[in-house]
Amino acid sequence: MKFIAIGELMLRLSPPNYEKIVTTHNFIVNYGGAEANVAVSLANLGVDSTFFTVLPNTDLGKSCINYLKANDVHTKHIIKSDGRMGLYYLEEGVSVRPSQVIYDRGSSAFAEYDYKDVDFENILKDYDWLHLSGITPALSYNCRRLIDKAIKAAKKLGLTVSFDPNFRSTLWSFETARDVLSRYLPYVDVLIGIEPIHVYNADGTDVKDGLTMDPSFEDMDRVFKAIDEQYHMKAIARTVRYVHSGSNNSLKAFYYADGKTYESKTLNFEIVDRVGGGDAFSSGLIYALMQNDWKHEDIVNFAVASSVMKHAIRGDTNITSVDQIKRLMNNASFDVQR
Amino acid sequence: MKFIAIGELMLRLSPPNYEKIVTTHNFIVNYGGAEANVAVSLANLGVDSTFFTVLPNTDLGKSCINYLKANDVHTKHIIKSDGRMGLYYLEEGVSVRPSQVIYDRGSSAFAEYDYKDVDFENILKDYDWLHLSGITPALSYNCRRLIDKAIKAAKKLGLTVSFDPNFRSTLWSFETARDVLSRYLPYVDVLIGIEPIHVYNADGTDVKDGLTMDPSFEDMDRVFKAIDEQYHMKAIARTVRYVHSGSNNSLKAFYYADGKTYESKTLNFEIVDRVGGGDAFSSGLIYALMQNDWKHEDIVNFAVASSVMKHAIRGDTNITSVDQIKRLMNNASFDVQR
Amino acid sequence: MKFIAIGELMLRLSPPNYEKIVTTHNFIVNYGGAEANVAVSLANLGVDSTFFTVLPNTDLGKSCINYLKANDVHTKHIIKSDGRMGLYYLEEGVSVRPSQVIYDRGSSAFAEYDYKDVDFENILKDYDWLHLSGITPALSYNCRRLIDKAIKAAKKLGLTVSFDPNFRSTLWSFETARDVLSRYLPYVDVLIGIEPIHVYNADGTDVKDGLTMDPSFEDMDRVFKAIDEQYHMKAIARTVRYVHSGSNNSLKAFYYADGKTYESKTLNFEIVDRVGGGDAFSSGLIYALMQNDWKHEDIVNFAVASSVMKHAIRGDTNITSVDQIKRLMNNASFDVQR
Amino acid sequence: MKFIAIGELMLRLSPPNYEKIVTTHNFIVNYGGAEANVAVSLANLGVDSTFFTVLPNTDLGKSCINYLKANDVHTKHIIKSDGRMGLYYLEEGVSVRPSQVIYDRGSSAFAEYDYKDVDFENILKDYDWLHLSGITPALSYNCRRLIDKAIKAAKKLGLTVSFDPNFRSTLWSFETARDVLSRYLPYVDVLIGIEPIHVYNADGTDVKDGLTMDPSFEDMDRVFKAIDEQYHMKAIARTVRYVHSGSNNSLKAFYYADGKTYESKTLNFEIVDRVGGGDAFSSGLIYALMQNDWKHEDIVNFAVASSVMKHAIRGDTNITSVDQIKRLMNNASFDVQR
Amino acid sequence: MKFIAIGELMLRLSPPNYEKIVTTHNFIVNYGGAEANVAVSLANLGVDSTFFTVLPNTDLGKSCINYLKANDVHTKHIIKSDGRMGLYYLEEGVSVRPSQVIYDRGSSAFAEYDYKDVDFENILKDYDWLHLSGITPALSYNCRRLIDKAIKAAKKLGLTVSFDPNFRSTLWSFETARDVLSRYLPYVDVLIGIEPIHVYNADGTDVKDGLTMDPSFEDMDRVFKAIDEQYHMKAIARTVRYVHSGSNNSLKAFYYADGKTYESKTLNFEIVDRVGGGDAFSSGLIYALMQNDWKHEDIVNFAVASSVMKHAIRGDTNITSVDQIKRLMNNASFDVQR
Amino acid sequence: MKFIAIGELMLRLSPPNYEKIVTTHNFIVNYGGAEANVAVSLANLGVDSTFFTVLPNTDLGKSCINYLKANDVHTKHIIKSDGRMGLYYLEEGVSVRPSQVIYDRGSSAFAEYDYKDVDFENILKDYDWLHLSGITPALSYNCRRLIDKAIKAAKKLGLTVSFDPNFRSTLWSFETARDVLSRYLPYVDVLIGIEPIHVYNADGTDVKDGLTMDPSFEDMDRVFKAIDEQYHMKAIARTVRYVHSGSNNSLKAFYYADGKTYESKTLNFEIVDRVGGGDAFSSGLIYALMQNDWKHEDIVNFAVASSVMKHAIRGDTNITSVDQIKRLMNNASFDVQR
Repeated sequence: MKFIAIGELMLRLSPPNYEKIVTTHNFIVNYGGAEANVAVSLANLGVDSTFFTVLPNTDLGKSCINYLKANDVHTKHIIKSDGRMGLYYLEEGVSVRPSQVIYDRGSSAFAEYDYKDVDFENILKDYDWLHLSGITPALSYNCRRLIDKAIKAAKKLGLTVSFDPNFRSTLWSFETARDVLSRYLPYVDVLIGIEPIHVYNADGTDVKDGLTMDPSFEDMDRVFKAIDEQYHMKAIARTVRYVHSGSNNSLKAFYYADGKTYESKTLNFEIVDRVGGGDAFSSGLIYALMQNDWKHEDIVNFAVASSVMKHAIRGDTNITSVDQIKRLMNNASFDVQR
Repeated sequence: MKFIAIGELMLRLSPPNYEKIVTTHNFIVNYGGAEANVAVSLANLGVDSTFFTVLPNTDLGKSCINYLKANDVHTKHIIKSDGRMGLYYLEEGVSVRPSQVIYDRGSSAFAEYDYKDVDFENILKDYDWLHLSGITPALSYNCRRLIDKAIKAAKKLGLTVSFDPNFRSTLWSFETARDVLSRYLPYVDVLIGIEPIHVYNADGTDVKDGLTMDPSFEDMDRVFKAIDEQYHMKAIARTVRYVHSGSNNSLKAFYYADGKTYESKTLNFEIVDRVGGGDAFSSGLIYALMQNDWKHEDIVNFAVASSVMKHAIRGDTNITSVDQIKRLMNNASFDVQR
Repeated sequence: MKFIAIGELMLRLSPPNYEKIVTTHNFIVNYGGAEANVAVSLANLGVDSTFFTVLPNTDLGKSCINYLKANDVHTKHIIKSDGRMGLYYLEEGVSVRPSQVIYDRGSSAFAEYDYKDVDFENILKDYDWLHLSGITPALSYNCRRLIDKAIKAAKKLGLTVSFDPNFRSTLWSFETARDVLSRYLPYVDVLIGIEPIHVYNADGTDVKDGLTMDPSFEDMDRVFKAIDEQYHMKAIARTVRYVHSGSNNSLKAFYYADGKTYESKTLNFEIVDRVGGGDAFSSGLIYALMQNDWKHEDIVNFAVASSVMKHAIRGDTNITSVDQIKRLMNNASFDVQR
Repeated sequence: MKFIAIGELMLRLSPPNYEKIVTTHNFIVNYGGAEANVAVSLANLGVDSTFFTVLPNTDLGKSCINYLKANDVHTKHIIKSDGRMGLYYLEEGVSVRPSQVIYDRGSSAFAEYDYKDVDFENILKDYDWLHLSGITPALSYNCRRLIDKAIKAAKKLGLTVSFDPNFRSTLWSFETARDVLSRYLPYVDVLIGIEPIHVYNADGTDVKDGLTMDPSFEDMDRVFKAIDEQYHMKAIARTVRYVHSGSNNSLKAFYYADGKTYESKTLNFEIVDRVGGGDAFSSGLIYALMQNDWKHEDIVNFAVASSVMKHAIRGDTNITSVDQIKRLMNNASFDVQR
Repeated sequence: MKFIAIGELMLRLSPPNYEKIVTTHNFIVNYGGAEANVAVSLANLGVDSTFFTVLPNTDLGKSCINYLKANDVHTKHIIKSDGRMGLYYLEEGVSVRPSQVIYDRGSSAFAEYDYKDVDFENILKDYDWLHLSGITPALSYNCRRLIDKAIKAAKKLGLTVSFDPNFRSTLWSFETARDVLSRYLPYVDVLIGIEPIHVYNADGTDVKDGLTMDPSFEDMDRVFKAIDEQYHMKAIARTVRYVHSGSNNSLKAFYYADGKTYESKTLNFEIVDRVGGGDAFSSGLIYALMQNDWKHEDIVNFAVASSVMKHAIRGDTNITSVDQIKRLMNNASFDVQR
Repeated sequence: MKFIAIGELMLRLSPPNYEKIVTTHNFIVNYGGAEANVAVSLANLGVDSTFFTVLPNTDLGKSCINYLKANDVHTKHIIKSDGRMGLYYLEEGVSVRPSQVIYDRGSSAFAEYDYKDVDFENILKDYDWLHLSGITPALSYNCRRLIDKAIKAAKKLGLTVSFDPNFRSTLWSFETARDVLSRYLPYVDVLIGIEPIHVYNADGTDVKDGLTMDPSFEDMDRVFKAIDEQYHMKAIARTVRYVHSGSNNSLKAFYYADGKTYESKTLNFEIVDRVGGGDAFSSGLIYALMQNDWKHEDIVNFAVASSVMKHAIRGDTNITSVDQIKRLMNNASFDVQR
């Protein structure tokens, strides 16, 4: 199975040691972006993984490519262009203090690039799986066009398409996001997260109206079935996060496939680095789905364990192995491995 | 409301990453002192805040002034003088290992300065609120004189005076502290902490005799009322700390105003930096009292949340905003804020 | 003498220990900008100094203000606005490897702000000296308008105006820069640097045509006189830099006042931090000119020593004292001062 | 009481801040080895402590000796020889991610040295207590011979011999370890840990067959008595560890002496540095046994508290004091000690 | 032109900030090895570059591969095997203190691997240029066999073979090295360095007898011609280093091709990182020779500039561009590039 | 030869990377003091070396003892007492910026201790050489008494006494220093430095009047002879330092013994750490004098090379070997030692 993701890769600048942006004297360098995180995490699990993006033609763009290559991600389709490096500042939360993000991704090389001459059919023809997120169409008109072209080419070529709607309120309104992203759903096979999209009841209200952040199994089952009915998915999944503090969370997930809903174990864990936790759920899910013979219970539990493991690793991505995730999923000992 | 605090500002030297003093190879630089911490924390909450002290006429003194200015604290009354920079070494505790402090503040420029020519009436006339602590009179005869002059001038000028008795056993005996500090209480409006002071029963015993570190509401109410009866306070408050480990505590507070005692919520939290936790309670309380229309329950809960937030921030002071404290006080999510 | 400068303040991100941008794992945080560097350096020399700029309304903007305040620079006129924080990446050169800069200042809060409602006469009326540079008008149409308004208001109010043309080829072409900047020269009293401006010969060629980077005294004298004749300056100065390597330079300056040209001593020095060297020449020159009774030889030698001292200090600005610069100017010992 | 331990001292290289080996850019330097950890920890408790080993004749060997001396451990018997410095890479675990160790101790100076001319009777004659572990005989044939000679010399000279079997699966098989180590037991007085050794039932099966990692008091008592019957020990002890996560464990111990079994309190604690936790149990136990008048309950509780304290200290060894361990053992407050 | 190098890649551990091994508290991680340095440097210059080696099957081996990939070096032929990671400790010299190296590369996965089943003809058939050094055959019998097989396969397939004899006195004797390495010379096209090899006079003495470290042009010309006569080289080159101090050297080179000897410019430079300077000469020379139309003077000057540039870059390899080397070679300014 | 030095050992706090005290965020920890530096440097050269001082009874005092022990210095006579840890802040100079020192050693445990009950005859009876400096008597009356007692005991016991007058203007006046220190000279055998002491001409003027910092051989010879005549020295030495910049100095020395004056080579060198350079001259000289058969020229050249080597090593002391100093003294290559 050959995997490709498309999206923006940003420079991530975070103060060390849980210092604050307003008092820090230096920034730790990482790289991140929802789709790139999935590509890098999958490559670390051993999947043949490629990332497509546009990067500035400077040493900053070169650093990104080095980062991807060092993580076994193929970079041959990446375009170098004028424009700035998108970045974000991350103040890592701890204890009662939440993480805070300041985005500075406007006018980036990725957002400004004119994708009209990019031949996505030619790019995607060698791959089996395409992953996209709802962040890209929020960045610019050019990016929205990019997603249009890519998702349609993927469908035409028969790739499995996974999609994480991933709403970012600083980029666009919830209503606009719903309208735009719902148009992509007919092309999606695996849906990871259920907002912001439209799933209409007969009376025009949304199936998800009134659904809480911690829904019952019955409610979740009802919603998944409605989504499947309208959009015909191979699989749907979503996580439920219990935020006990900035340093301690619990996580579980609901997962739907073949007409049935499954609920994972709930894992409690301390947090080293919160960012990329959702993307590690995606990469875990995609990895598990690529193994054709896994049981549904194992698929969702592996995806949750993948996400939980990420929170113990610095940076945006899940630099770990399938074995380590399985150990966690199977409750093996956390004691030192000599 | 214009706020001023008077006290010593010390250089704080602490090993990084929870290393020990005996094995560390470098010290992180911070600045701290009970009263300065309150001034800096209030400035970060947006209060017009000034700090008066005496600093050595060297680059170390200059560093302190830079630190105060960078935190929006006015420094125009600070005196530069001969004498050394007071400092303390802080070994930050973690898990079952408690924090340890080695003070080296003897013979400091602040302790040795002769305050006889300082015109406190002239200094204080532009302010509405004066904050003092019981540490200063413990430092030297000169400092005791300084507090005498300042507290009387404040009273004469009609400032609100808040006072944190703040006993330090390495500086003086509990009995001496009680005798000296009790003499200031007639000039105090807001008392933060109830030791070491005298509050006599009719039979000459102390009202607080037998009071535990975790008193019942009834006991606390009785003590507060006795203090109010003898010294006539606008408000009295004290925290109760449950030290589960060096890395995890819980905190609540009792608060008395208008003849009634209030008990806050109890918050549990992990600790990044323990020092200044009490001062952040003071700054939170003072901030809340400065807002004329807050309910008593909100006042004490804000003060506790202010203290708890401080424990998640490196350094002695509460570099945070009113919004962040309110989020915590109102149980808003600890998840990443994008 | 009250001093004010107007310009952009950027976040400066540089790898530690002469590492390269392409391989670094963290960035040291500094703040810099040609005009801000002059304001901060003058404040460190004891001058009453103010900086006007526009900063984003985030913790990054707050950090900038903290930096200015910590350095005794007044910030009361600074506007907080939407828009991003301008920044630049600096790879510090060493030995045979030159420093490299990647600018990322497009669309900054400063460049995008609409200055039409800013009343510069009201702002400038309390100051004696205004410093500007040729970088600001290169940033945007709004910024060009800002300089127009500020320089005319300053002239009207009788301030001394110093101006550093400071050409940046990544921002605009040399020809455009010449055309735009020459229009400001009638309002300028102290000109620091002689490019990019027009100084016409009778035949329409430029007086400076053919002038090398290491001109003879006679050539320099001829050019200075031509500038003075056309634009009527109080003083003109320019440095000559001999770049032996990325780590070792020599510097001298030519200076013109009262109809005569002066040449400074040439100082050789090792380089710790190259950036801001020119701005420290400006601040040294302005400081010296503010002292009404200094001899012309001392003025130019102080300015050169100020610049040379900066190269031994990390960051963009000359965090030093008048005494230290005079020691250097007077060849005092470089041995340890106990 | 004069103490000596014999074993290998390794360079320990661990990424900072819970980074991973595969992504780290630097390694923190520590020194460790099971027996050296005991010697260093005892010296920090005030015991006259000596360590015997063989080190390479390079600056790395010199660093080890400096480390031991700085910790009050005598080094006069240490041999400098050709051969490499043994080392291990430690990826410190956190949260759900376990610590991982990569050993690189093959062909070390210690393992390769020919001990045939070392006169252990002459070395040991000045000591009262010898500590050994089951790691040394696993390293090489030479090392097995070293232990043979040392343990017999100690017995002959009347030293108390403590022994920690300490199985390392990367060095040898469990069966081989059992066979080799059981031969040393007749010379052992204090046994710390009960595997890998043989304790036969009448039918040739092992007394410990079926014993879980969390045995009942009765099972433990039965096993201890069987060991004592076969090998005649002064004391036997073992810990039971509950690994809630990589960052949080609980610990208790069983202890046997004078024909009776004792169970300690169970302490829960957060983990700063996991390695050396077992060795700190050994050093705590040995220290307590050296105090002739301690009650058995205090001995085992002190040993557990010693181990727990170690987990709050960076590095392999328990750099703490008897007072601090007693505070922990007696549930004194974890709050800051001013 | 497709390039491949074969050799050992080691972990390099060096104290930061010119600290000493004996006092350092951490080690900076780099990777290096004579042949890998050439491969990585060439990849940074844009050459299609591959490295063949054997690495341990651990996270340390994975780190090496990540490093190579991040630098655009292909790693597909690398073998993962049992065995340890070779490493070296580097104490970087400064001023009058020379750099010191402690090698710990014995019994490495690379040295111990049995290459008998490696099909070098199959590996090398896709490449145009093979680079080897005299270090590999010094490591083990297996490695000597590896070089035998590789160099003969390369010759058979018509690759250009470059060879750097690179004597290491800690690995073998000068005489043995001469005997072994001379046997490879008939297969070598480009010889970089002239020791340790045999070049016999008619009387059996060595042509190079009496040649100093700073030979005259005439002596050098005579030696080059004798080498060419005996071994038939496409090009021969060697550097001459003037070590003024640990922080300041000068470098020039002699180069022979088409029957003539050329002498480069002599460049003086400060040193940031000394290691890999020779390898950067090799990579510069190979790059220049790959450009078919360069003049001989430019070839040797580019190779020297490549080496000099490396000394200004941390780590073993020349992370720079052709443009930067040409700037240096052409004496362009060392001033900041904005 | 057994060596002992007596003096104060201070904590040294210096900003990293040539940052300034006023802007630094952390301090590197070192330990230093003129006499301790000599003791530590001699121990590193292999001399049996002991240091006597008084240290505070805290973890800071313990750190000092650990530092001494790690450097092979015996500490058994050190007294632990109440009182603070003396310290100094060192801003390391670079390029044109000189190093600056802020002392904070007043009221230290060493200065305040009452030495009346210390039996120096008992302490010194096991040693052959005592080293003292003129700093100690400047610290307090108690310290002056300490030197009186120690130097007389040493003379009585027949130790060789070396003395470095070492004037510190921040501690006392030049005139007082001269008066006090001259009284010790009759007990001194080896004088290192010639100020501040009295050496009278017949007319009551000082022999050294008018002597420059860079005296001629003839002047130096005349002064040495006058000192010898009045005080009868075994050897006298002094350095001459040429301070080209904060980063580059040259050093030579004059040396007098057996009635003749010798002048060393002049060595030029870059500076990593300036402090302790003079003490390394003392330790080099003492080491050389302890070798009974060295030529006078070698003695003075070794002492100069010892001092020069120190400037390339971080910290106050000369952590190096006799071999390394001899290499430098004999102009061996500065290139990497593999």
